[in-house]
Amino acid sequence: MKRRAATTAKHRPVAARKRPARAAKQVPLGGAAKQVPLGGAARSINAAEWQARVELAAAYRLTAMMGWTDMLGTHISCRVPGTHDQFLINPYGLLFEEMTASDLIKCDIEGRKLSDSPYAVNSAGFTIHSAIHMGNHDAEAVMHCHTQYGVAVASQKQGLLPLTQMALTALSQVRYHDFEGVAEDHNERERLVRDLGDGGMLILRNHGTLTVGTSIGEMFARMYRLERACKFQITAMTGGAELNRIPTEIINHTLEQGGMIYGKGGRGAGGKLMWDALKRKLDKEAPGYAS
Amino acid sequence: MKRRAATTAKHRPVAARKRPARAAKQVPLGGAAKQVPLGGAARSINAAEWQARVELAAAYRLTAMMGWTDMLGTHISCRVPGTHDQFLINPYGLLFEEMTASDLIKCDIEGRKLSDSPYAVNSAGFTIHSAIHMGNHDAEAVMHCHTQYGVAVASQKQGLLPLTQMALTALSQVRYHDFEGVAEDHNERERLVRDLGDGGMLILRNHGTLTVGTSIGEMFARMYRLERACKFQITAMTGGAELNRIPTEIINHTLEQGGMIYGKGGRGAGGKLMWDALKRKLDKEAPGYAS
Amino acid sequence: MKRRAATTAKHRPVAARKRPARAAKQVPLGGAAKQVPLGGAARSINAAEWQARVELAAAYRLTAMMGWTDMLGTHISCRVPGTHDQFLINPYGLLFEEMTASDLIKCDIEGRKLSDSPYAVNSAGFTIHSAIHMGNHDAEAVMHCHTQYGVAVASQKQGLLPLTQMALTALSQVRYHDFEGVAEDHNERERLVRDLGDGGMLILRNHGTLTVGTSIGEMFARMYRLERACKFQITAMTGGAELNRIPTEIINHTLEQGGMIYGKGGRGAGGKLMWDALKRKLDKEAPGYAS
Amino acid sequence: MKRRAATTAKHRPVAARKRPARAAKQVPLGGAAKQVPLGGAARSINAAEWQARVELAAAYRLTAMMGWTDMLGTHISCRVPGTHDQFLINPYGLLFEEMTASDLIKCDIEGRKLSDSPYAVNSAGFTIHSAIHMGNHDAEAVMHCHTQYGVAVASQKQGLLPLTQMALTALSQVRYHDFEGVAEDHNERERLVRDLGDGGMLILRNHGTLTVGTSIGEMFARMYRLERACKFQITAMTGGAELNRIPTEIINHTLEQGGMIYGKGGRGAGGKLMWDALKRKLDKEAPGYAS
Repeated sequence: MKRRAATTAKHRPVAARKRPARAAKQVPLGGAAKQVPLGGAARSINAAEWQARVELAAAYRLTAMMGWTDMLGTHISCRVPGTHDQFLINPYGLLFEEMTASDLIKCDIEGRKLSDSPYAVNSAGFTIHSAIHMGNHDAEAVMHCHTQYGVAVASQKQGLLPLTQMALTALSQVRYHDFEGVAEDHNERERLVRDLGDGGMLILRNHGTLTVGTSIGEMFARMYRLERACKFQITAMTGGAELNRIPTEIINHTLEQGGMIYGKGGRGAGGKLMWDALKRKLDKEAPGYAS
Repeated sequence: MKRRAATTAKHRPVAARKRPARAAKQVPLGGAAKQVPLGGAARSINAAEWQARVELAAAYRLTAMMGWTDMLGTHISCRVPGTHDQFLINPYGLLFEEMTASDLIKCDIEGRKLSDSPYAVNSAGFTIHSAIHMGNHDAEAVMHCHTQYGVAVASQKQGLLPLTQMALTALSQVRYHDFEGVAEDHNERERLVRDLGDGGMLILRNHGTLTVGTSIGEMFARMYRLERACKFQITAMTGGAELNRIPTEIINHTLEQGGMIYGKGGRGAGGKLMWDALKRKLDKEAPGYAS
Repeated sequence: MKRRAATTAKHRPVAARKRPARAAKQVPLGGAAKQVPLGGAARSINAAEWQARVELAAAYRLTAMMGWTDMLGTHISCRVPGTHDQFLINPYGLLFEEMTASDLIKCDIEGRKLSDSPYAVNSAGFTIHSAIHMGNHDAEAVMHCHTQYGVAVASQKQGLLPLTQMALTALSQVRYHDFEGVAEDHNERERLVRDLGDGGMLILRNHGTLTVGTSIGEMFARMYRLERACKFQITAMTGGAELNRIPTEIINHTLEQGGMIYGKGGRGAGGKLMWDALKRKLDKEAPGYAS
Repeated sequence: MKRRAATTAKHRPVAARKRPARAAKQVPLGGAAKQVPLGGAARSINAAEWQARVELAAAYRLTAMMGWTDMLGTHISCRVPGTHDQFLINPYGLLFEEMTASDLIKCDIEGRKLSDSPYAVNSAGFTIHSAIHMGNHDAEAVMHCHTQYGVAVASQKQGLLPLTQMALTALSQVRYHDFEGVAEDHNERERLVRDLGDGGMLILRNHGTLTVGTSIGEMFARMYRLERACKFQITAMTGGAELNRIPTEIINHTLEQGGMIYGKGGRGAGGKLMWDALKRKLDKEAPGYAS
């Protein structure tokens, strides 16, 4: 009996470490997007939503793979296909690398849960996301990060400089939003939407970065390019070295080129090739997200 | 016979590399915390102590996983549950990534061993820890690091600046302690306790960082946030770029928010969600610590 | 049937993630380089071309292993042996780490495909490469990168300083090319060739780096040394510290030594030892490229 | 037949990638250090030499594991036990991570091979090592690196500053040697010995770092501490921030403490605990070196 007590003591932490159990897993439905009434239509998962969940879970895992995570902080969200005010977001408490399609929580514009989960939605954190989703009907997907280089450029007064080809092909998409404290204030929503405007990349001063997309892939590819432009700038600035300034006409020319390469029909359009490649990488190295 | 000599020569180094053998492993006891008299009550392990050992061993391995180790240097310690002057600390000579619950050494306030181990306690290094444990009864757990970014901010005159959201949500917990040489002087104990005061994070100038917690998880989550705030600051400062200063009222507002998020009932309270997530990661990637 | 629909929905993305199928794989031919008429001589693969494909695929994978990739961006190309105007280049859309010998696309000087592939050639990106290949008959192999340190030095007005032994043994090979926007302009070709001249390493200002070689190995070893010299410079410049300037006569002496070490008969000649070592590493850690 | 030709073409590169074959492996001899006359006494391997080879091969692999390598460049060497002018060094062309005890080459003071190997000794590179070994009879082991942070501090005029605890506990061992070009000049030998003097760590200005030891472990532990002190300094200097200067008396006190901790009887004496720990790590993660 003594021995059993010891064993219990030893095993309890491991048990505690298991994720809280989910309610019986809902069967994803395909074809005619038939709704199964499990606590209301919003709680069922049709084929389009399932597909969005798989893409979003992939984005979480790839964000971990890129080293862009901040432990449990920050979010990636997307609109539930066929709705205008329902969203998918991470359960607060899972690591990005753990995420699966069924773990994701469906919520409304205030971050209230519409699907079962043993975890909460970080509704304060969702403030930024819902604002962008609602204010910009093209923002199907929204991604926010606290990366080493993104936060660094966000904390420099000049922001992103027209210094490298990478920056120049991104800059036409870049906008800025001033820091107001941890984003728990619903009034900040309007200013976020206004500041992003028609941009695709938002630098949250003293805080981090954010990108949007009409697809998960576009959102992710934008974050990749923004992060990389930030990394190049920070590294080039080392030592306060005199920077090699690019003539204005070449700056303008390259800004235009960036629009063509990443705009419709361009070779980087919608981030599709990059996103397909990254999902192949994920399937090979960290599969299991599509479950 | 010649061949045997060769073999011996070849195998000896490997044998020498094995860890010194432990005395017969003590059976952890649960339930009523009944004490088994193996050389005195202090040498037995009851269920609460075993649990603390498992948590502490996890903290060592996760510190290695985060890249915060300095080879054999620095320590993480916790009070033995139910005592006020007994502590658990690492055997000096094991890598953090090797640590197991049974490897940890129980010691008194001077770092004298209360449990068997083929390794010594680095009692000089323990000076900092015992001071904090004894001077602050809430400091159940104490963690000290020499990280790249922590040491860097500790060596800059201004210390941690109110520059990023990450820094602002941490700063109300941050205190400073001046460098006095390698901490082998017992008189430094008082100054350490005084300097930490009611803070949770201590920047040891020109030396490193330290965090405390009422639990291992709280201590670890504080180190995570402090280290990250330091990394963001250092990266943002590159090139001596003009920093984007935050208005005082927003600084103050965010400091308050930090207290609410990480204080009781906040979504980051006690680091619990983060710690649970990190232990799941450890169970998957570097199990074996709970033995 | 509902269940089947769900399964389909779930599995479709995985299927979509498979690479587009190649046409029936062409048998590489050895010995007398006999041409098999599969849609014209240019579409067959003789032994020399196969060998070049294997080397080039190795260079792609090793570039990934070194952390020098920019996702789908940048290229590595080589001339098809025995031709003067046919080249091998990557299919646009594969990650460098995925590359195999048979994936590579044979193209003409304008980047038009001469071999089957479900992927396109990034002909805009190939502009830089074809210019160098055609303008410099020794440039059998050309490699272009957007690395963290390469882009950083390329964006500093002073370029690569004669600061370290690594830089000094590389500098006699280094040339510069000013930024003109994304390289889609065929007129830029002449200026690229002129700027590279007889050098082996080209710093593309505000953009990246480029190296050439009479072999894949020479090209790769040059990129290694250039990248490393850039990394050392950037790190040494941190904080705007006063640098330790080397006397001119020692600079000149070391430039000469670099020429002897990496020139014919030198211990680093053609990068052969490095390249052989890297391929052993690749065979061990990321095999499969030679297929 | 066509198919066979193709196969040959495909397989040849892989064969070429195999390391050149060694002559029949010499049996290591133990016990009475009996010499087997395989082309002279110097070509046999007694137990003490075998042990030295195992330690040195471990040092090569651990250098790779620490990220301190520069591809094929730099060397680690040790004196053959029981001799005063015979040394063990790496075959030029193997990666540090590939090294095994039997791969190492025994050579004389000029770098001439005394044991069989399909590889050459980089005798120019060995110049630095033989000078130190011969000029300092305590220098049983010598290690030279081109690390990111070591080269950076070596290229800053001020060298290693008394800025952090890590630097202060190392500084009493640090000496400087001015850059004279690639070290192929035998006259530089005297200046190297003079500049190292009684130090244990030598900063080769504009070039790299070097440490010596009475054992492989001591040499390696010194490189660890020097490299780490350099990393901390570089990171702290970011942005040209005002540094937190330590009062002179505390600097002097800490320099003394460093001597006691790492001198005879100190807790870091001879690097023994660190070296044992690192070899356990190596045995687990990259075994095979002791063959």
